Amino acid sequence: MNEEKIEELISKLTLEEKVGMCHGRGLFRTEGVERLGIPPLKMSDGPMGVRHEFPDDSWVPIGNTDDYVTYLPCNTALAATWNTDLAYEAGTVLGREARGRGKDIILGPGINIVRSPLCGRNFEYMSEDPYLISKMVVPFVKGVQEKNDVAVCVKHFAVNNQETERLNVEVEVDERTLREIYLPAFEAAVKEGNAYSIMTAYNKLFGYHCSHNKYLLKDILEDEWGFDGVVISDWGAVHNTVEAAEGGLDIEMSVTYDFDEYFFANPLIKAVKEGKIKEEVVDEKVRRILRLMYKINAFSDNRKRGSYNDFESREKVLNVARESIVLLKNEGNTLPFKDSDIKRLAVIGQNANISHSNGGGSAEIKALYEMTPLLGIKMRLGGQTDVSYAKGYSSDKSKKEELIEEAVRLAQNSDAVVIVGGLKHTAEELELKDNALTISKDEKIERYVDSEGYDKTDLDLPYNQDELIKRVLEVNKNTVVVILSGSPTKMTEWIEDTPSVVQTWYNGMEGGRALAEVLFGDVNPSGKLPVTFSKRLEDCPAHSIGEFPGKETVKYSEGIFVGYRYFSTYNIEPLFCFGHGLSYSTFKYENLKVDNNEKMEDIVVKFNVTNTSKLAGKEVSQVYIGDEESSLPRPSVELKGFKKVCLNPGETKEVEVKISRKSLAFYSKQERKWIVEEGKFKVFVGSSVQDIRLKGEFNVNSECRF
Amino acid sequence: MNEEKIEELISKLTLEEKVGMCHGRGLFRTEGVERLGIPPLKMSDGPMGVRHEFPDDSWVPIGNTDDYVTYLPCNTALAATWNTDLAYEAGTVLGREARGRGKDIILGPGINIVRSPLCGRNFEYMSEDPYLISKMVVPFVKGVQEKNDVAVCVKHFAVNNQETERLNVEVEVDERTLREIYLPAFEAAVKEGNAYSIMTAYNKLFGYHCSHNKYLLKDILEDEWGFDGVVISDWGAVHNTVEAAEGGLDIEMSVTYDFDEYFFANPLIKAVKEGKIKEEVVDEKVRRILRLMYKINAFSDNRKRGSYNDFESREKVLNVARESIVLLKNEGNTLPFKDSDIKRLAVIGQNANISHSNGGGSAEIKALYEMTPLLGIKMRLGGQTDVSYAKGYSSDKSKKEELIEEAVRLAQNSDAVVIVGGLKHTAEELELKDNALTISKDEKIERYVDSEGYDKTDLDLPYNQDELIKRVLEVNKNTVVVILSGSPTKMTEWIEDTPSVVQTWYNGMEGGRALAEVLFGDVNPSGKLPVTFSKRLEDCPAHSIGEFPGKETVKYSEGIFVGYRYFSTYNIEPLFCFGHGLSYSTFKYENLKVDNNEKMEDIVVKFNVTNTSKLAGKEVSQVYIGDEESSLPRPSVELKGFKKVCLNPGETKEVEVKISRKSLAFYSKQERKWIVEEGKFKVFVGSSVQDIRLKGEFNVNSECRF
Repeated sequence: MNEEKIEELISKLTLEEKVGMCHGRGLFRTEGVERLGIPPLKMSDGPMGVRHEFPDDSWVPIGNTDDYVTYLPCNTALAATWNTDLAYEAGTVLGREARGRGKDIILGPGINIVRSPLCGRNFEYMSEDPYLISKMVVPFVKGVQEKNDVAVCVKHFAVNNQETERLNVEVEVDERTLREIYLPAFEAAVKEGNAYSIMTAYNKLFGYHCSHNKYLLKDILEDEWGFDGVVISDWGAVHNTVEAAEGGLDIEMSVTYDFDEYFFANPLIKAVKEGKIKEEVVDEKVRRILRLMYKINAFSDNRKRGSYNDFESREKVLNVARESIVLLKNEGNTLPFKDSDIKRLAVIGQNANISHSNGGGSAEIKALYEMTPLLGIKMRLGGQTDVSYAKGYSSDKSKKEELIEEAVRLAQNSDAVVIVGGLKHTAEELELKDNALTISKDEKIERYVDSEGYDKTDLDLPYNQDELIKRVLEVNKNTVVVILSGSPTKMTEWIEDTPSVVQTWYNGMEGGRALAEVLFGDVNPSGKLPVTFSKRLEDCPAHSIGEFPGKETVKYSEGIFVGYRYFSTYNIEPLFCFGHGLSYSTFKYENLKVDNNEKMEDIVVKFNVTNTSKLAGKEVSQVYIGDEESSLPRPSVELKGFKKVCLNPGETKEVEVKISRKSLAFYSKQERKWIVEEGKFKVFVGSSVQDIRLKGEFNVNSECRF
Repeated sequence: MNEEKIEELISKLTLEEKVGMCHGRGLFRTEGVERLGIPPLKMSDGPMGVRHEFPDDSWVPIGNTDDYVTYLPCNTALAATWNTDLAYEAGTVLGREARGRGKDIILGPGINIVRSPLCGRNFEYMSEDPYLISKMVVPFVKGVQEKNDVAVCVKHFAVNNQETERLNVEVEVDERTLREIYLPAFEAAVKEGNAYSIMTAYNKLFGYHCSHNKYLLKDILEDEWGFDGVVISDWGAVHNTVEAAEGGLDIEMSVTYDFDEYFFANPLIKAVKEGKIKEEVVDEKVRRILRLMYKINAFSDNRKRGSYNDFESREKVLNVARESIVLLKNEGNTLPFKDSDIKRLAVIGQNANISHSNGGGSAEIKALYEMTPLLGIKMRLGGQTDVSYAKGYSSDKSKKEELIEEAVRLAQNSDAVVIVGGLKHTAEELELKDNALTISKDEKIERYVDSEGYDKTDLDLPYNQDELIKRVLEVNKNTVVVILSGSPTKMTEWIEDTPSVVQTWYNGMEGGRALAEVLFGDVNPSGKLPVTFSKRLEDCPAHSIGEFPGKETVKYSEGIFVGYRYFSTYNIEPLFCFGHGLSYSTFKYENLKVDNNEKMEDIVVKFNVTNTSKLAGKEVSQVYIGDEESSLPRPSVELKGFKKVCLNPGETKEVEVKISRKSLAFYSKQERKWIVEEGKFKVFVGSSVQDIRLKGEFNVNSECRF
């Protein structure tokens, strides 16, 4: 029915009108066709909330008061909840707000693999593990799209795993690795999530920029996965009209204001008129665009209005933040603090007292508000505890010794100390251009910022934080270190002497409240690391082989051994492993049963989890598989299932995790097929990839290929 | 029990320690006595939320992120709800946040009478009517104090009704007027509300500064009203040690940093040592201060902690804002707008797009967020309505014609228009000194700002708003004018041609949302004016006699004829009368019964109110009394009771209002007594002071005096 209308519309459109629909006419919109009632497509960044409004032709924000929005936890935080329901809820918030702000397409989520801890955009991504990302992105996409008449734009397709030279770097990755590690989350977003649009990456793959990449966009996305949505370029990611047009790109967006000169503007009209591109190629783009418009009810008077800054959205982002915080270490049960024991609390560290929502590049937003850790703690403790603040360190690197001494004095006179350190999220000290595209050419700059456009230069905590932490610990042992970042950081200098360490993130507008609730025991922490925290940068696979960041090319020579797959297989001891995260409760695992009835689609893994503490808590039970007998090298363990369960004190629940038979496969680049070979598979059930509590196994008796 | 402990503590205190408790040791705290476990008293502005943190000795804010708070609607807005339950709820929010921020005393509410529409501080005050203020302030005070272990400081005692020359102006008011108009709300706050502290006004009364005013502080407050709390000076309102000490002041606060030189610091010690003041006088101050400390559990480990920025507080301030908005005019039922009828909406006016929470002088706060009208409207309408904004006018007075033309163009191309004008609340264009004490000496400045420290210079809407409104109306009749202010403004130039006019206020962090809900019919307006809106400034009583503002002296020659008492008695037609406020519903009044059984304490007035519309709504039914036979001139009507009732479509409720016999009295300055004379009293029941629906009467058969 809609398809008929679409064909009718196409038949009425002039070439110029069609082309107008295929490229930016403003920085965040295409051209509509008023005479046929076709509206422009309006887009907005980004994954953590709808970005502030820009004029069509300027990167200087409009500056009204009407674009303050809900600030959502970053994608890494969302992944750290390991709670698929929360991923759906977060999606509903983003979708409702995008529609409320009048958008058709929200430019997110970002689901690239965290290949290196240094990638500046890791905070926008979810994990190093394709399975975890897949399980989180599908409900997120559904949450955005299902009830809001708005489209996601899943990004960045594909292998955009570094910011350095991102516009041109050639990613050299073998086909098996591409298929097993870098593409599964995109496939899930498309096939299970039904993502209406997808954004091409800046970089090159197999010799072509991703926006020109017929193999990616036609062969895989369209033919293999059956994607019938719209392919949109990253802003400024197109370099050639014919290649991009033939390659499967539908809409070219860019960062400049000469909209008529975009590759998909006048040059495309010219190419069609000169016969270099058939008009049917343009028709197909328009068809996809119109189809997306029907999916989001763009032609309907009854289209959803959306809204933003709803009260319930704040509760939802608070719930995500609460479950995203990871208790990394808690020796002697320093945490939770008991408020009545603490008359004087010292809060130390720049990250306790600054906002992050306005940073990160295109993920920046104009948050209606942002609760810092300091605010969250003071709000929570109220008038019966004297909360004092010392900056402790500063990203402007001034007064190093003075700041430390002030912090040490404060810590000495306090009953407890919370140090909030980590990374920065705003890149004002770097040469950040307003369109966030520029990559700094100055190799000498030390970069410690989680932001689009830059990779970090090492894993260290910047601005003398190590020294600050050590010196505070010397005078007050009742100290908790909170790391606020979107990427792993190095903690080895002080981790042994620090009783309690907490990881939090750019955690949405209620992030500070959530942190305080965890520190003071109102919330029992249940977050689990979605990325491995290594002891040293050199321990990370891409860095162990010197392949990060690439300049002209980057070789993914570590292959499939990304993240914990590497650490586990090669027995590298991480600082904190993938899946790690403590609770104030303790959990017992028992009674593993593995049912591999080959008539069933799935292998069914069942086990009991018991809360052996006096406190209700949530546990993320993880199921890893190891292929014992394989014709190709495989990781010793791979995550194939998980479930987050809530348990009252003493309560036992039977957890059932289904592992699809297909997910046991590896990809054979010779055969261009997924293969599950016969033989024994081991099953590991536990609380993290290292904290395995139960082991089992099953046999696959007949090979399968697909 | 506590009194015994208090005497024991006093006996242990040195004179210097006692004196330290009686004056500021920081800008917002006194000195404690650590050796005896007596903490300092910590105070904070103000009535619309807890003000940001200052260092002890600087008016430059500390600037951390930990003092963002809930921004409450201004007191005028609260009074406009005529909802005593909401007054209690607002009090609970302010109290919990004050305690959460570690305060002992919150410096509010302000309950001075709105004598002139020009007083810069009207927004902090409630009404021109002492009865309405009394009914609202009592639950407010209880809300602050009852469950929060924190004290109010009711201000400014007394007759602080102008900002001009406020530090020294002598108020000449006759005793009857003082008693009938200017003191009743304070008496209610003390006797019914149990206010723990009270703040003296800057000005003089009967020859003495209020902080030195024995008649006010001892004779009335202490002896007549039985006040056992603490009297605190306004900041810098003390000018003489002995007068203030003997006059009944307990704590001197000021704006300078030479704390030892405050009148109640070294000079007080000296005066005691020299025998000019007995040490018992100081003891009594300390006794009151310690008594307040016990009332707020300052010595207890189990003292309430408080908290701030709670989710429920946001809902409470939203509820206040919703019920405070007054629908002044609605010809042809332009409102409520139907969202589906409006594809393009123009929002015009600077006040639609700026924040107000950071203005007003000491009432300024660091709001966690503030929803402007523009944001509220866009949030509400979401993506199905194209909301465009034009500034229309600017307080910097630049580009007058350009702004109007831009607005007119936008209005022409819109289905509906919302103009949001009114006054300003931030005084950056005035010579506002950091302590907000300075009164501008430049008589030529036009002042249109609702702010402490300044009175406005006339009633006009500033910055060419009249012209803007008229020119927009010329091109689009589907226009609603919203006036956002804390004081009445003049609307005569355009009111006849404007179908719908709405009054809103500095309406808290959710003010913009509440406004949008009213405009689009999610909320049925139920606010009623707590002040008369006059057609011309000269129509207002104080101005009709040229007695505002005073410089060295100000004569309140209008006497008791303040506000509607004047307009009604002298038949001056206001623009919108006291108590006025429309609803989207209509209400019928019937069956008035007046029961004056003289055995009863109260006269009981009963009547039925029916919602005759198809929409649920709230009506504030008002009961006025007129004393037909009196030996002294009396106002033709005086508010003596009201009730806010919620009625479903078609529903009838019987409303019962009890009028205390005492409230019928006038004050005889000759006899220094309240007198109810024999004779006939008329009863007027209606929807405003002019919209009287039912009339009745009763006789008083025996005179009474008290």
